[in-house]
Amino acid sequence: MTARQGEAVYQGIAVTFSTESKGVYAIATTPFFEDGSIDFHSIDKLTDFYERSGCTGITILGIMGEAPKLEPEESRAIIQRVVSRANVPVIVGVPAPGFAAMRSLARSAMDMGAAGVMIAPTPALRTDDQIVNYFAGAVEAVGDDVPWVLQDYPLTLTVVMSPGVIAKIMANHPSCLMLKHEDWPGLEKVSKLRAMQKAGELRPFSILCGNGGMFLDFEPERGVDGAMTGYGFLDMLTKLVGLFASGRRDEAHDLFDAHLPLIRYEQQLGIGLAVRKHVLKRRGVIALDAQRKPAQMLTPTARAEVDYLLARLAKRDPRASF
Amino acid sequence: MTARQGEAVYQGIAVTFSTESKGVYAIATTPFFEDGSIDFHSIDKLTDFYERSGCTGITILGIMGEAPKLEPEESRAIIQRVVSRANVPVIVGVPAPGFAAMRSLARSAMDMGAAGVMIAPTPALRTDDQIVNYFAGAVEAVGDDVPWVLQDYPLTLTVVMSPGVIAKIMANHPSCLMLKHEDWPGLEKVSKLRAMQKAGELRPFSILCGNGGMFLDFEPERGVDGAMTGYGFLDMLTKLVGLFASGRRDEAHDLFDAHLPLIRYEQQLGIGLAVRKHVLKRRGVIALDAQRKPAQMLTPTARAEVDYLLARLAKRDPRASF
Amino acid sequence: MTARQGEAVYQGIAVTFSTESKGVYAIATTPFFEDGSIDFHSIDKLTDFYERSGCTGITILGIMGEAPKLEPEESRAIIQRVVSRANVPVIVGVPAPGFAAMRSLARSAMDMGAAGVMIAPTPALRTDDQIVNYFAGAVEAVGDDVPWVLQDYPLTLTVVMSPGVIAKIMANHPSCLMLKHEDWPGLEKVSKLRAMQKAGELRPFSILCGNGGMFLDFEPERGVDGAMTGYGFLDMLTKLVGLFASGRRDEAHDLFDAHLPLIRYEQQLGIGLAVRKHVLKRRGVIALDAQRKPAQMLTPTARAEVDYLLARLAKRDPRASF
Amino acid sequence: MTARQGEAVYQGIAVTFSTESKGVYAIATTPFFEDGSIDFHSIDKLTDFYERSGCTGITILGIMGEAPKLEPEESRAIIQRVVSRANVPVIVGVPAPGFAAMRSLARSAMDMGAAGVMIAPTPALRTDDQIVNYFAGAVEAVGDDVPWVLQDYPLTLTVVMSPGVIAKIMANHPSCLMLKHEDWPGLEKVSKLRAMQKAGELRPFSILCGNGGMFLDFEPERGVDGAMTGYGFLDMLTKLVGLFASGRRDEAHDLFDAHLPLIRYEQQLGIGLAVRKHVLKRRGVIALDAQRKPAQMLTPTARAEVDYLLARLAKRDPRASF
Repeated sequence: MTARQGEAVYQGIAVTFSTESKGVYAIATTPFFEDGSIDFHSIDKLTDFYERSGCTGITILGIMGEAPKLEPEESRAIIQRVVSRANVPVIVGVPAPGFAAMRSLARSAMDMGAAGVMIAPTPALRTDDQIVNYFAGAVEAVGDDVPWVLQDYPLTLTVVMSPGVIAKIMANHPSCLMLKHEDWPGLEKVSKLRAMQKAGELRPFSILCGNGGMFLDFEPERGVDGAMTGYGFLDMLTKLVGLFASGRRDEAHDLFDAHLPLIRYEQQLGIGLAVRKHVLKRRGVIALDAQRKPAQMLTPTARAEVDYLLARLAKRDPRASF
Repeated sequence: MTARQGEAVYQGIAVTFSTESKGVYAIATTPFFEDGSIDFHSIDKLTDFYERSGCTGITILGIMGEAPKLEPEESRAIIQRVVSRANVPVIVGVPAPGFAAMRSLARSAMDMGAAGVMIAPTPALRTDDQIVNYFAGAVEAVGDDVPWVLQDYPLTLTVVMSPGVIAKIMANHPSCLMLKHEDWPGLEKVSKLRAMQKAGELRPFSILCGNGGMFLDFEPERGVDGAMTGYGFLDMLTKLVGLFASGRRDEAHDLFDAHLPLIRYEQQLGIGLAVRKHVLKRRGVIALDAQRKPAQMLTPTARAEVDYLLARLAKRDPRASF
Repeated sequence: MTARQGEAVYQGIAVTFSTESKGVYAIATTPFFEDGSIDFHSIDKLTDFYERSGCTGITILGIMGEAPKLEPEESRAIIQRVVSRANVPVIVGVPAPGFAAMRSLARSAMDMGAAGVMIAPTPALRTDDQIVNYFAGAVEAVGDDVPWVLQDYPLTLTVVMSPGVIAKIMANHPSCLMLKHEDWPGLEKVSKLRAMQKAGELRPFSILCGNGGMFLDFEPERGVDGAMTGYGFLDMLTKLVGLFASGRRDEAHDLFDAHLPLIRYEQQLGIGLAVRKHVLKRRGVIALDAQRKPAQMLTPTARAEVDYLLARLAKRDPRASF
Repeated sequence: MTARQGEAVYQGIAVTFSTESKGVYAIATTPFFEDGSIDFHSIDKLTDFYERSGCTGITILGIMGEAPKLEPEESRAIIQRVVSRANVPVIVGVPAPGFAAMRSLARSAMDMGAAGVMIAPTPALRTDDQIVNYFAGAVEAVGDDVPWVLQDYPLTLTVVMSPGVIAKIMANHPSCLMLKHEDWPGLEKVSKLRAMQKAGELRPFSILCGNGGMFLDFEPERGVDGAMTGYGFLDMLTKLVGLFASGRRDEAHDLFDAHLPLIRYEQQLGIGLAVRKHVLKRRGVIALDAQRKPAQMLTPTARAEVDYLLARLAKRDPRASF
């Protein structure tokens, strides 16, 4: 099954990639062996773990997937592996330095059965017009039949998109189905976009939030449909989104607050990925926490700090008991 | 008393600004009336509140003190007011666009009885040499008899200082007594600096952390002497630093975790100051949460979110019951 | 006479600061003595030199006027000195770190008889909305009765304004009379703005170009009204603008090409001001080439290079024979 | 012949890529057909033109070679084509987003017979340590047996390398044979590096300058060995370098000054490549001035301006008569 081919259901959850997408899309890490080669067995285990955690989609080859450290043929092998195993839609990051490589990666991802691609602005963009034109070029390159996610991540990409710019991009490109929102601060931006939609000034699209879930205790009430992130306890995130969906606000906050110390610790640029891989390894999902170079690894002190946070978390959430 | 004149004690705490400084230095907000004029009565109440909260120092006219929105004579009036009332050392931010204005503000601050000044790098600096030379110029301008705090805040100032650069600045300028550390991530940087000191490669200096306290549950164990921030519950921060000092780690984390949702909410660039003023107003410390233009205020939704976090906090910390 | 009070004529040239302004506005340097104090006698000589060179306006306290190195009272003294001596409109740069200081400097400049102020965007601005809102705040601060020049200088200020953004600012603020255009590349931007005006989408305003005159051999034909720069041979620039006005294209290029090696040499960020002051000193206009700290001075090799270029220039333009 | 295999001579000029390299390395453009496919016949003609112009090396797949718009297999085809035809050393730009792709491109370039690669810093680097570490990682990736050129280009790459940092990189990596210097301003940096070498603090390496040749009238006397740029009149550049080598300073300046208006016009970020391709097309070297998307093309007005400059140039340099 590929999610592009209309309605799809996996374990009772609608898992089509569309403007109605809800829930949690896992930002997949890429497991490596110590020598830097790809650990495909752990990729399979990760894929299963994401689905078992209730994820409604998987995003591979994003920034946290160490995509720039991969060669093109490796990227293709990973896409093939995940797409052939997953029951939920797979989105492929195409952060190519130019449109030719972006097109080529996007087309082969779709050919292999991906549900869509994720496109981020190139860091040099400044004016609203430059941003809008960039996405016009990108969509022309990959083809306007390829469904895609717009990534809005100013902290890392240095490109700031106002609600008006997002509205223009959405108006220009019906093939954009989802916004990955990780502006910071971003709560008012979500409110503004949803208000524009309510006022009929903006067509519908799905909004999933990033930033490691740092504001996921308020984002659902602001109008987001869920999260797209790779925090080690994706099962908690899906639970959290469900609690909000059923109006259990206080319970949701209790759950969130228990995880916030760890979520916050992971939100350290550079070593965040090391924290994430360490947690996934400790949960038994991936075999090793190895990264390709250039890598920032945890010092023994940092590892002990994460373990201490995990121990504290275990008292409030059994998911952390292992 | 001015803290420059040697050992000073306030309510049993050593409060001299020195390379041995410990505890919490409050980053002071500047209270305004709705028409933009300065609310000096609230400044007095704030000064008293900071001391009552156990702060060992007060830093005024920083970024969060809306310093760039003040005219020079207003800055001087505020320095005068706080210095004449405070029993703890007062540090004055001198974020001047050029060395002439920096010198002039620093000299008059010292004349009025400030304990020292805080100097931040100008955003255009890139290479290590440029940074080191900038501080040489700044110290030449303000005079090498003026004690100062080095502010390391890459997220906002875009200047990245390696441990080696900080070491050079410290070696060049004995008048620098303290590092305000708010790099992010920054835990390893603290460890590195303290290791350099232990190895005798770096002279002693005090390190207080910023970033609104976001990592203050681990920073003391990494070697910091306390915090320099303006989070609304400074009394909690001083308590926290005290718990760590007496080795009560779990208790410290319990206290910190209760506050983290609010600390995190405040850590939103742009509206952070609005959150802070709102909390200080609700605690009855300042009369109004007004800001000078350009200001980012809380929307009704955001205000309700903060109030919800305060209500949740009140269940775990009576400081939030009001 | 102040140029604000309607039509004004100096030596037969209309010198009112208006949307019709033409010719060359000198970007004034600020002469200092070796000890860093201001050389007011050289300021007078500079003022006279600018007028003798045919300048139709003088802009003081810009980036190249070392404005950030001045204290507020010094800025005011310089404004007073130039305004009281000049027969042409004087524009005052108000590059203040906040709106309070900007307002205060702008109001006192106008009270002293300045024709208007020049406002540049603060470097942190990114989106079109942020830029437009910034100027709304600035105009509210200085007052909408103060005529002003919009400075568009991305290379140094890192803020990129599209033609659409400039159009919005011009539409919002009738008190903006002139664009100082120094985008690079910028020829097409000028053509675009003039086309928008021709199509009736944009109200009229004057455009003077900066970048040290680096493209002044083509800018007039693109539609600019002249230059605002501080190149040492302002008499050549006024001549050049005049040649274009009378359709003598080849002659204009011959003149320009003779100066281009020196114009280009001056266009080195950091040492450009040193080149400019050296040339003005050699021409006998200012007494010394001293700068306030932090300053980048010419090395002996660089000074010899400039002198070699001046010697070569003297063979083609007698203005350089001294 | 590949230039790696020791001393090589082409038409009487030593053309080995080494720390002694002199002369002009052409920055090659990549010719395309209107449909975006690669024009290999024009590549051959370009290669011949570069050699006929007296170039002592050719650098392909740089920023001005539209490298980011190429797919990996296309890059390899171009390397193959140029290497198999050229008699002078061929340097290959490897501006890969990650070390894996950089390694792969570098290794296959060397296998095909390239003389070396050119490595630029990734734009995110800030501190001296970060820069030094990046190149350590890059050299580890490509292998320390691969000769390379260090590209120092702050204006586009936003990474500023002090002379001290360059010295450290050179000390760490004997495989770095050449600095492509295009800092701006940069004359003093060259003098500083050469002085460090003279003082024995820095090992020898070749320095070729970029920036389109904008300061090539002074750089040879500062100590550079030549230029690495793609200005349409490479035959003029090789002549210029020769005039300096034989001490004919005034003559060199006369020649340079004749070209400066066009050199300067080409130095417009974004449209510079369009100017360059237009000139090469008018000189009959490449068939078309087509670029791959995203491309900035010349407007009719801009094209007319370039043609006017060419017509003026023809009066002083017969190379421009066509």
